[in-house]
Amino acid sequence: MNTYIEKLQWRYATKKFDPNKKLEKEKLETLKKAIQLSASSYGLQPYKVFVIEDPELRAKLRPAAWNQPQITDASQLIVFAHDTNFGDDQIDAYIDNVVQTRGLKAEDLKGYADFMKSKITPLPDDVKSAWTARQAYIALGNLLSAAAHLEIDACPMEGFEVEAFNDILGLKEKGLSTAVIATVGYRSDEDDTQHYAKVRKPETELFETL
Amino acid sequence: MNTYIEKLQWRYATKKFDPNKKLEKEKLETLKKAIQLSASSYGLQPYKVFVIEDPELRAKLRPAAWNQPQITDASQLIVFAHDTNFGDDQIDAYIDNVVQTRGLKAEDLKGYADFMKSKITPLPDDVKSAWTARQAYIALGNLLSAAAHLEIDACPMEGFEVEAFNDILGLKEKGLSTAVIATVGYRSDEDDTQHYAKVRKPETELFETL
Repeated sequence: MNTYIEKLQWRYATKKFDPNKKLEKEKLETLKKAIQLSASSYGLQPYKVFVIEDPELRAKLRPAAWNQPQITDASQLIVFAHDTNFGDDQIDAYIDNVVQTRGLKAEDLKGYADFMKSKITPLPDDVKSAWTARQAYIALGNLLSAAAHLEIDACPMEGFEVEAFNDILGLKEKGLSTAVIATVGYRSDEDDTQHYAKVRKPETELFETL
Repeated sequence: MNTYIEKLQWRYATKKFDPNKKLEKEKLETLKKAIQLSASSYGLQPYKVFVIEDPELRAKLRPAAWNQPQITDASQLIVFAHDTNFGDDQIDAYIDNVVQTRGLKAEDLKGYADFMKSKITPLPDDVKSAWTARQAYIALGNLLSAAAHLEIDACPMEGFEVEAFNDILGLKEKGLSTAVIATVGYRSDEDDTQHYAKVRKPETELFETL
């Protein structure tokens, strides 16, 4: 068993965090960097990530997340909010970034920009929104892997009311909606879940080699 | 800069693989293990993962993936196929697995099983399907992180025709549909993309701390 896999074995969806143990600033920066470096469709990163520390705001969000204590007790609450109005403007902003980062000329990328616009902008709203949400899930996967690697505990969570989160965080007016959330920090000694054997589909069932 | 982040910086969506370099068996096993250990909603893993090596099958799939050469040239093609008929049966199978793995009694988990069934089974087909697909994206994120860690090249791909993939792989009759695919192996020296500067949203734009 190699170390990387051992770390993935070590992680679990932490239900009780130690409210007194905060993430070291440097570790939080590494988690953010891992999120930032996540792959996404065309590299477009069609989402924004809120790192929520404010106790009052978290107390307000908690009832909208089935009152789960991780929301207030973890070191940080991470909210992945996907774009709901993704289109030409966002693609142009991406192209600007490519031009800047790689020292290219905008006109050299016009064909590529037009290609992306033709593929993405005309999509129906619900299809587009599902697509941007899926990109956020890649970043979630990356966050969970990075956290495990650093021996930081995390809990990915889908048990929350999307509309309530959007209202409290004022996301709608920003063209965003909550895709998924996660809490990060350190497990409480009292979290019994950490002692449970990990349940996974056997490889013979999960995989098929063709 | 720590090592973990350096590995994420190193990775990129590999466009040209070296067709003569195959993944070592042990490395492929580690990638599969990383996929298997991925987090998913309630731990349900509502997907199946095809590891495709057969050159003929890959030649058949390539035209359905915009004729991208990675499909045939990479060491393996990984197809994440999400459940389209997720419901009581799958939840019962999961509960059986929990019972076996943790040495519990099925009746102790009846309340939990009923809770999951009440939340998931009544969902409209499209909502359910979008939800199972998102779980597969967490596994994709985990795969990409693990590959980077092992210095294996990978290319996550959404540029393919879902229906054609489903037909060729016979997924529909298994209650599955292609969510996303990825190729893994080793980059070709001729892949110019590896020299391009990585384009990412600046942290100030991607993140907001509250």
